[in-house]
Order: sequence, then structure tokens, then C-alpha cells
Amino acid sequence: MARPIVAFLTDFGSSDHYAGAMKGVVLGVCPDVTLVDIAHDLPAHDVMAGALELAACYRFFPAGTIFLVVVDPGVGSARRGLAVDTGDYRFVAPDNGVLSVVLAEAPPKKVVELTDRKYARPTVSRTFEGRDRFAPAAGWLAKGLALASLGRAVSDYHRLELPPPVATADDLTGEVRRIDRFGNAITNIDRRSFDKFAQEHAVQITVGPHVVDRVVATYDEARGIETCALFGSTDHLEIAVPGGSAAARLGLTRGAAVSVRRVP
Amino acid sequence: MARPIVAFLTDFGSSDHYAGAMKGVVLGVCPDVTLVDIAHDLPAHDVMAGALELAACYRFFPAGTIFLVVVDPGVGSARRGLAVDTGDYRFVAPDNGVLSVVLAEAPPKKVVELTDRKYARPTVSRTFEGRDRFAPAAGWLAKGLALASLGRAVSDYHRLELPPPVATADDLTGEVRRIDRFGNAITNIDRRSFDKFAQEHAVQITVGPHVVDRVVATYDEARGIETCALFGSTDHLEIAVPGGSAAARLGLTRGAAVSVRRVP
Amino acid sequence: MARPIVAFLTDFGSSDHYAGAMKGVVLGVCPDVTLVDIAHDLPAHDVMAGALELAACYRFFPAGTIFLVVVDPGVGSARRGLAVDTGDYRFVAPDNGVLSVVLAEAPPKKVVELTDRKYARPTVSRTFEGRDRFAPAAGWLAKGLALASLGRAVSDYHRLELPPPVATADDLTGEVRRIDRFGNAITNIDRRSFDKFAQEHAVQITVGPHVVDRVVATYDEARGIETCALFGSTDHLEIAVPGGSAAARLGLTRGAAVSVRRVP
Repeated sequence: MARPIVAFLTDFGSSDHYAGAMKGVVLGVCPDVTLVDIAHDLPAHDVMAGALELAACYRFFPAGTIFLVVVDPGVGSARRGLAVDTGDYRFVAPDNGVLSVVLAEAPPKKVVELTDRKYARPTVSRTFEGRDRFAPAAGWLAKGLALASLGRAVSDYHRLELPPPVATADDLTGEVRRIDRFGNAITNIDRRSFDKFAQEHAVQITVGPHVVDRVVATYDEARGIETCALFGSTDHLEIAVPGGSAAARLGLTRGAAVSVRRVP
Repeated sequence: MARPIVAFLTDFGSSDHYAGAMKGVVLGVCPDVTLVDIAHDLPAHDVMAGALELAACYRFFPAGTIFLVVVDPGVGSARRGLAVDTGDYRFVAPDNGVLSVVLAEAPPKKVVELTDRKYARPTVSRTFEGRDRFAPAAGWLAKGLALASLGRAVSDYHRLELPPPVATADDLTGEVRRIDRFGNAITNIDRRSFDKFAQEHAVQITVGPHVVDRVVATYDEARGIETCALFGSTDHLEIAVPGGSAAARLGLTRGAAVSVRRVP
Repeated sequence: MARPIVAFLTDFGSSDHYAGAMKGVVLGVCPDVTLVDIAHDLPAHDVMAGALELAACYRFFPAGTIFLVVVDPGVGSARRGLAVDTGDYRFVAPDNGVLSVVLAEAPPKKVVELTDRKYARPTVSRTFEGRDRFAPAAGWLAKGLALASLGRAVSDYHRLELPPPVATADDLTGEVRRIDRFGNAITNIDRRSFDKFAQEHAVQITVGPHVVDRVVATYDEARGIETCALFGSTDHLEIAVPGGSAAARLGLTRGAAVSVRRVP
């Protein structure tokens, strides 16, 4: 039988020991585990970035994978710790919305607050619950503990506001959600909303004050032009600059307005 | 039985092949091993950063873990390679003080110099002993070789100067030791020294020319104030700016003076 | 029997989910695998950096290792995906030259284009073939599939121009190929070419307009001087500044001219 998988997504960076300490704790509870680093350089304290990156990749892991997601600006506060079962996957994270996007698309079978102290470390640091509360919980799940044993059921978990794109007769408007490593600006405009609005018409796309040169199917098609828009690997519209960074070239950050208009 | 664990802590970064080459060598000696990345972006050549990050996390790994710690500005020089057994853990590293903090708190059962060429690669690069000498030694330990087989016992290993905080009748003075990814400034003032000095009195804390607004128990308690001090996850006093970077806001770097005074 | 190894080398960075998604896909095909991160912070779209870093480390992995190398500026274009068997190792990568250096030194037994859709994900994103085409192919190889099953044999794979150093009666000239994390500038001048040219004579080395102070055997020997040259861990001449960054101090980037002259 394959070993359980614990996949890490954090903002702990790669110059401190924090991610390492969490891995040690998971291994201490469940030595026979496959540890996977998704990413540790999420922008510090950026819960929305965590929510979006997690949502963009979890479905590509095998069923049964346990995700340990720690972006935790409220560490030490009254915000709760959660363990969530969506049927195919389980998630351990602070209750600050970092699971919002996943839970919007995969309604949970069970959500519990991490209340049972037996499954935390004996002393829980007020500044590093990732190590003392979330990592042991993930380790116990990997070891086979039932999720319900970790604490009491809750249903009022925190959700981030993530407005969908808005369609009117004239345009479809949305915003930039993520800037990736290559400077691509990924928007909240999904392919279905786009297709429903565009309906085979040609469209013009603007991002902030900039008119995008062309809608293409691949980065490669866009060689020789300045800016393009295309549907990326999560099936959302993204703004790109062939061979360069759209974010740098156009000065884009999260929240930049994006508009799609039908060309008459 | 669980597989042996080799945990890596280096300053090799994540854009070069160096950390990867070491992992390949460990796997070549002991294929059935669990490799763990603690961190590879320690500041280049910063032996003290390595010593402090290692000390902050090793106890959270299961007993038996082998730590491969390579921050090695003296590579190719006469400085020795070491393998150390503290009873619960083993460590392979250059003899430059990077194990100082661990060895101060966990006196070693055995320290050997890596002298037996059988357990190094056939050719040892003068610029990359991490690959050719330290990684194979860690691999052999993982494979079950007795530490004593790696070389001859030594007792005069290198120690870094890490002065403890100093208490007088009037104040307790220390310094900033680490700046973490979030800009928190972690000092050398441990909770025991602090409690002994403060003895239930209210205290005022200064760091460089700045008076810290308040001593709190969690980052969260500090919302709405400018600067705070609290005991972090290694039980040392740290200076923080709620929702921001204390290092950036106050211009703190390693060595900045920190002082605790009783409030009359 | 030891588990198969899949080693990752990419330019996906560590703030996005891309590397994580690929790992999930490999685990989905072959759960019983050892995943190894070589590096994910190659300069974005820098195929030559990928080719050089891969060549610098693959031989240090155990025979049988599968390398998944994704630096893919041409994603979505007509450029092919490749799987390559060199006897000791297998490689999955876009056909853009990122395997050039490896294949120049280890002539392949078999090269196939990834044409069989059975071994890709059902839908292949035009912007992320690493996830949908390359990762599944690596997973299938790890699972034991014969490389020939992945697609049809090809022989005209892409090669980068990587000119060797040029020797005349007067000098040996080459160029800087890589700048590493420490600011060392690694050249294309290998030890054999150097020895053949120098033939026991003393030499003077220049890089751009700078005369290098001394040729040394280790960084340590160079303490107290400004700049040195030495043979690094891949047996190529590199320019270094003891305790500092040669790249920063001398303003070196890839392509900077390096010249070796015999001293009369």
C-alpha cells in the first residue's frame, strides 16, 4: 500500500527553520509518510495567495493527500485551527479563509476545529501553531486517525470574499488575482463566464488603462506582439507579455481591473 | 521499520545544482532514505545563521534523524569535517562552529573527524566537500554505519562566541540574533533570564534607540500598536511590528542592542 | 528494492503552485516514488541555465534516476516533448536544448517524442505541459513503463550552441557560463583544455578588463587577495572573490570573455 502523502504550502520562506520544524513534527507522529513541498515562498501573511495557489493544484494530487496549509497572520489569536475532509482530500489550516476557494468548489463532508489537545504538541507556542498544532494534526491524519477525533464539528468557518466576474450587456469585468513567477497576471475570469459573454464574437480586453493586443491560445502564438490574453492552466484568463513580465511591463498588481468588451 | 531520515540545512540556494548533487550522493549510498529539506537559503557563508536555525528546529525531528548541515566558507582549507552523535541525533558538518548551539545544549557522546577516505567520494573537490565528503558520510550513517567508523575522535571542535544576555541590578542587556522571514528580530534573551530579571515587575524594552511599546503574549494582542516584544517559538524574546516587519521599520540587523529595564 | 527516484529541475520558483502540481501528478501515476527537488529557481525561461545545472549534477544521482526538467519558454508551441534514455539515466523535458549538455557527454541510447496520449493527462493545457505531459511521462517511467512506449523515436533533437574554449599559440579564450549563488563565475574552460594549453607554465588570466590576481587550488588559499581563479566542483575554471561575489565585484554576467595567457 502506498504511503500517506502530506503536502506543505506555507509562507515560511526558505531561509528560516519554520518549514523544517513542521516536517520534523509530522515525521515524529507518522514516520512512514511522503512529504511534498508545494511552495514555501507565498507572500508573507497573504491568505488570499495561499487560498488561490492551493485551489490551483490540490486536484492534481492523488486522492487521500493531506494538505498542511499555513499562512497565519492571526497566529496566537482566537482564530481556530481546522481540519477538513472533502471526501477526496483532507486539509489542516488556520480558520482564516485560506481554504475558501477549495471549499467553494468542493463542499466539505466534515469540518472540525482542532480542539483535542491529545493531538497537539504538549506545549503550543502562541507564535507558531503550525509546528505545535497543525503539523501534529496532519501527522495524526496521515497515521490513520479519523478526522472527527481531532475536535468538534463546526460549520461557520471563515470565507474570503472572492467576487466573481460581472457581466453586463456591454462588458464582462473582473480583476487580477495572482501574479505568477513569470509575471503573468491571472484574473478571476474563468473560461465559462468568458465564453458565455463573448459567444463567438471578437472581443477587446483592457487591463487598467492598457488595451491588450490580442487573445491567443498559447504564449507562442503571441510572439512579435506586445501583450496578449489567454486561458492559462487553471482555465482563467491571464494577461501575458511574450518572453517578458506582464506585471512589470504594465505595472499590474492584484486587484487591477480587467474588462472584456465585444467588438462590434 | 521506518526509513532513516537525512535533513538538509545549507546556504546553497535554490537556483544552483549544489543541494541536488548532495541529495543524489546520499541516495547513491542509501537509496532507502527519507530526505527532508529544512532550508537552503541561509545567508551565504553565514555560519551563525546556520547554527541558530539548526538549534531552533532539530529537537522537533524524530530521534535518529541525521542532519547534514553545510555552510562552509572555509571549504578546501584545513578546517575539518565532523560527524557528531548527541545520543538522540547525529550531525555531519564542517568544523566551523555551525554545530555550536546544538552542542552547547546537547553535549555530544562522540565527535569524529571525517578522516576515513572509504566513506568519501573517490575524488574530493576542493570547493565542494558538501557533495564529496559530507553527503557520503551522512549516507553511510543512514545506511547503518557506526559513527566511529567515519574517522578519529576529536574533542577540540570549533565553537562560536555566542554571549548570553547580561543582567545587572538595573537592566538585562542582550542583542538581536536572527531576523526571520517576517522581519521579526529574535534576541538572545531567553525566557528564564528574563523572568529571573523581571520578577513580576513591569518592564520597558528598548532596541537600539527605539522604545518598544508593549510586551505581549501574541502578535494578535499587539494589533493597533506600533512595536511589541514577545516570547517566540524558541522561547526567546523577539521584537515585532504587528502586520509588518520590525527589521525594516526599526532598521534592525543582527547585533542590535536590546535592553530590558524594570519600570519603577 | 529501492523505490524509483524522480528528480525535479525547473524555473517554476517557490511562490507558485506549479512545481507542486507536477509532484502531485507524478505521485498520482506512481505513488511509491522518491521525489527529489534539485532546484526550482532557475532564472525564468533560461534554457541554458537548465542545461548547465542539470549537467553539473546528474552523474551524482544513482543509476536509474529519472530527471524531470522543465524550463519551457516555448510551451504550447510546436516544440516537442522528449523522453531520453542514456543507459544510466532517463530524462523527460521539452525539446528546446535543455538536455544538450547531458546528451553531448552521454550519447543517448534512445530518444522518443512524447506522442502517446495515453501517457499524458486527458486534457493538456497549452500553457503548462510540465503538469499535463511531462510529469505523467516521468511518473509512467517510474512505474516501470518502457521508454519506447511513450512515443516515436526521434534523432533530430534540439541542441544549444555551447562553443568550447579556443586555444591559439598565444592564448586560450573562453567565456563565463554560469554565475552561482555565491557570485562565483564558472567558465567553459575545462581542466583538460587548460592543462594542455598551460603545460606547466605560469599563466595570467583576464576576465573582461580585469586581470585575475592569482590561480589557486582553493578559495581558502586566496585569502587576502582580491580575485582568484580556480577549478571548481565541475572541473571548470571559475573566477572568485574570496569571501565575496566575483560577479558583483567585477560586474560579470554570462558571456563575459575569459582569457588565459602564458607568462613569459
